[in-house]
Amino acid sequence: RLELPSPSAFTRLVEFIKLSSEDDIVNLGQGFPDFPPPAFAVEAFQHAVSGDFMLNQYTTAFGYPPLTRILASFFGKLLGQEINPRKNVLVTVGAYGALFTAFQALVDEGDEVIIIEPFFDCYEPMTLMAGGRPVFVSLKPSPTRDGELDSCSDWQLDPVELASKFTSRTKALILNTPSNPLGKVFSRAELELVASLCQQHDVVCIADEVYQWLVYDGYQHVSIASLPGMWDRTLTIGSAGKTFSATGWKVGWVLGPGRLLKHLHTVHQNSIFHCPTQAQAAVAESFEWEQLHFGQPSSYFVQFQQASQRSRDHVMRSLQVVGLRPIIPQGSYFLITDISELKSKMPDLPGATDEPYDSRFVKWMIKNKGLGAIPVSIFYSAPHRKHFDHYIRICFVKDESTLQAMDKKLQKWK
Amino acid sequence: RLELPSPSAFTRLVEFIKLSSEDDIVNLGQGFPDFPPPAFAVEAFQHAVSGDFMLNQYTTAFGYPPLTRILASFFGKLLGQEINPRKNVLVTVGAYGALFTAFQALVDEGDEVIIIEPFFDCYEPMTLMAGGRPVFVSLKPSPTRDGELDSCSDWQLDPVELASKFTSRTKALILNTPSNPLGKVFSRAELELVASLCQQHDVVCIADEVYQWLVYDGYQHVSIASLPGMWDRTLTIGSAGKTFSATGWKVGWVLGPGRLLKHLHTVHQNSIFHCPTQAQAAVAESFEWEQLHFGQPSSYFVQFQQASQRSRDHVMRSLQVVGLRPIIPQGSYFLITDISELKSKMPDLPGATDEPYDSRFVKWMIKNKGLGAIPVSIFYSAPHRKHFDHYIRICFVKDESTLQAMDKKLQKWK
Ligand SMILES: CSCCC(=O)C(=O)O
Ligand SMILES: CSCCC(=O)C(=O)O
Repeated sequence: RLELPSPSAFTRLVEFIKLSSEDDIVNLGQGFPDFPPPAFAVEAFQHAVSGDFMLNQYTTAFGYPPLTRILASFFGKLLGQEINPRKNVLVTVGAYGALFTAFQALVDEGDEVIIIEPFFDCYEPMTLMAGGRPVFVSLKPSPTRDGELDSCSDWQLDPVELASKFTSRTKALILNTPSNPLGKVFSRAELELVASLCQQHDVVCIADEVYQWLVYDGYQHVSIASLPGMWDRTLTIGSAGKTFSATGWKVGWVLGPGRLLKHLHTVHQNSIFHCPTQAQAAVAESFEWEQLHFGQPSSYFVQFQQASQRSRDHVMRSLQVVGLRPIIPQGSYFLITDISELKSKMPDLPGATDEPYDSRFVKWMIKNKGLGAIPVSIFYSAPHRKHFDHYIRICFVKDESTLQAMDKKLQKWK
Repeated sequence: RLELPSPSAFTRLVEFIKLSSEDDIVNLGQGFPDFPPPAFAVEAFQHAVSGDFMLNQYTTAFGYPPLTRILASFFGKLLGQEINPRKNVLVTVGAYGALFTAFQALVDEGDEVIIIEPFFDCYEPMTLMAGGRPVFVSLKPSPTRDGELDSCSDWQLDPVELASKFTSRTKALILNTPSNPLGKVFSRAELELVASLCQQHDVVCIADEVYQWLVYDGYQHVSIASLPGMWDRTLTIGSAGKTFSATGWKVGWVLGPGRLLKHLHTVHQNSIFHCPTQAQAAVAESFEWEQLHFGQPSSYFVQFQQASQRSRDHVMRSLQVVGLRPIIPQGSYFLITDISELKSKMPDLPGATDEPYDSRFVKWMIKNKGLGAIPVSIFYSAPHRKHFDHYIRICFVKDESTLQAMDKKLQKWK
C-alpha cells in the first residue's frame, strides 16, 4: 500500500518552486491565493481566538455544531435536500481530508474507482492506499482550430468509452467540477450521463466541488447530488479554504446520505477524531456573513468570482504574447496552456530520461524565465502521461501585483 | 476494515456527558482542560491570525518550517539526538493524527502490534484499520493493602508474559507514558526491558508521550527514544494540545528516524497533506516562549505541572469521602478509581445485558449524582473487559471552580 512515492511529483515541484521563489520567481504553481481572505473571514478567525476560551478545546467529533448547522441549511437549500447536521455532514481537515476519508470509507480491496483525466493528483494514490484499483477515462481535447483559442468545454468524455469503464467491481466514480487542472465545468447533460451510469451500476459518486463558486462567462455550476435520485449515492465535498480564500485553514466538509456518512464517521473517528475548533468557528461565522449577502452584489462569492474572472482574462492575454496557448477555463483557480509551439522550437531541454517534456519545460521556465507553474502530465496516469506532456497549469487566482510581476517576466521573455 | 463501531463507545459516552452537561453535570470525562490556555499561547494564536496574511494559506506539507525547526531543537536537546527538521519531524492533526499516520505507515496486513492494557481506546481500531492484529498484555494491579491507597506504580507488566508476546510477526509496540487512563509513568528499568525486547525482535516502538510534562511526586518522565539504540526504532509522538492546554488546536507531531518518517510522509501526503498553518504558527511561538523559561520556575511546564498536581490531590481527597478508592497516578490528566465498594452495595444497576458494570455505574452517577466520568472497561480489549469493570476514569485537569462544583456533588452524595 505504501509503494507510493514520497514526496510525490506534485509535492517536490511545489517545494522546488517555493525554494526558487527566494530568487525572485513569480509562483503560479500551487493553488492558493496570495492575497488576504476577505475582512469578514479574518475577523471571524480573530473572534474565534479571542472570544469564548472553550474554543481552545475539543469540539464535537464530527463537526462544531454551529458549523454543521449552517452547512446543512446553506447546502440544503442549494441541493434541494433536507440535510441533518448530525447525520449528513462531516467536517474534515480540508477537502483533501474529506477525499481521503471518503476513499477509505468506501473503497475495499480490489474495488474499482473511475477517475476522469486529467485529475487532481491525489485521487490515484488515495484509491491505491484504500486498496482500490483506479480506472481512467480521459477527456479528449477537440482538434485545434487555427487562430482560435480552445475552450475546455471542447474537452469531452466519450459516452461509449465512459460506459465501458463501469464493471461489477466499480465502487465509485470521482467527479471534479469545476475541475482541476482543466477548469472544466461539467454541463447538466454531462452530469446526467454520469448520474444515469452511476444509478445503473449502483456506483457512488464522489463529487469534488471545491471550486463551485468560481465559474466564469455565465456558465452554471450544477451539483450532481441535486439531480433526481443522486443524493442517496453522492458524497459532495467542499472546502472553506477555496470558498473563503483561506487554504491554510484546512476546513472541508462532506455532505451525503446517512448510509454512506456513517462509514466516513468511522474513518474520521479512527484517524483525526476532531477537527480544530477555532478554524471551524471561523468558517461558521464566515458562512453566516455570506448567507446575509448571498445572491446580492455584495456577496463574497460574487465579488471573488468577478475578480477571478478578471485575473483569468489578464493571464490569458499575457500568455498568448509569448506563444503559449491557453485553453479557456470555465471555472476553478487554474488554466492549462498548450506549449507545443515552444516544444517544437526547443525540443531538447535538460532532464531525466523518463521525465516528460512539460516537466522539463517547467524547470527550464523557472530557471530561465522566473515563472513557476505545474506540468500537466502529473495530472495523468502513467500510461497516458506521455500523450499529454505539452501543457502546463497556471494558477491565476493571484494578487494584481503578482500578475504585474508575471507581465514583467513575460515582457523580458519575448 | 470498517467493521468497527461508529460512534465508538468512547464517543457515545463523551457526547452523552456533553448533552447531560446542559442539566448541571460536572464533566470529568473527556480529557481536556476547562480553563484557558496560558496567555502567551492565546496571544501566539492571535498573532498568527492577525499578522502576516500569508499564514492564511498552505504551508510546507510536512510542517510549518518555524515549528519543525523549534521542535527539532527543543526535543533534540531532550533526547540527546541530532534532529533534522525536514527529515525527522512530521507535524500532524493532533497526536491522534500522528498515531493514525504511524499505524498506517508501519502496519501491514497481518502484522502484530503489542498494546499494553489499559490503553487509550483508539490504539485497537487504528491497528485494525491498518490491517494489523492487536496483541494485548495487561498491567497487573498489586493486591490491595487494607486502608492504604494503591499507586499505579503497583500496576506492573509481567516480564515473562511481555516477552512471550513478541513473535516474528510483531511489527510495533505502543508505549504510552505517562499513560491514559492509568496515569502510570514507566520507570527507566521498565523502559529498558521494553527497549531490549524491541531491539531483540526488530520491533518499532510507537511512544505516545503526550502527557510528558505532567509527572507528579518527583517521578521523572523518560523518553524511550533517549535510551541507547532506540532512536532509530522509535516514533516519539507529542501534542501541543496537551502541552499548552489547547486541545482544540489539534497540532501534534512525530519525531523519528528518516527511514521510518519517510513512510509517514507518504501517508500524510495522501491523507491530509498540510496541517492548518496558523495553529502551527501559534504552537511555534508558544514553544519559543517556553524555551526562554524552560527549567525555571516561570516555565509553563512547571506551573502547569504544579497546578495539575494540586488538582489531582484535591480530587483524590474528595473521592475517598464517598467510598471511591483512587489509584494514585504518577502522571497524565487522569486517575482511575476503584468502585468495588459501591459495586458490592449496588450490584444491580440498569443497563444492557452485555454492558459492563462500570459503564452502568457511570450512567447511574451522571443521572443520580451529577458527575460525569469514563468507565475504564472501554480501555480494555473485549476478552479482558469483564475483569476490569470496577474502575472509572476521572479527568482532574479542570478549573478550580469545576473541582468545587464536584465537591458540592460529592457532599450531597454522602
Ligand atoms: C494539496 S494542494 C491543493 C490543491 C491545489 O490547490 C493544487 O492543485 O495546486
Ligand atoms: C480523542 S479524546 C483525546 C484523549 C483524551 O483526552 C481522553 O482520553 O479523554
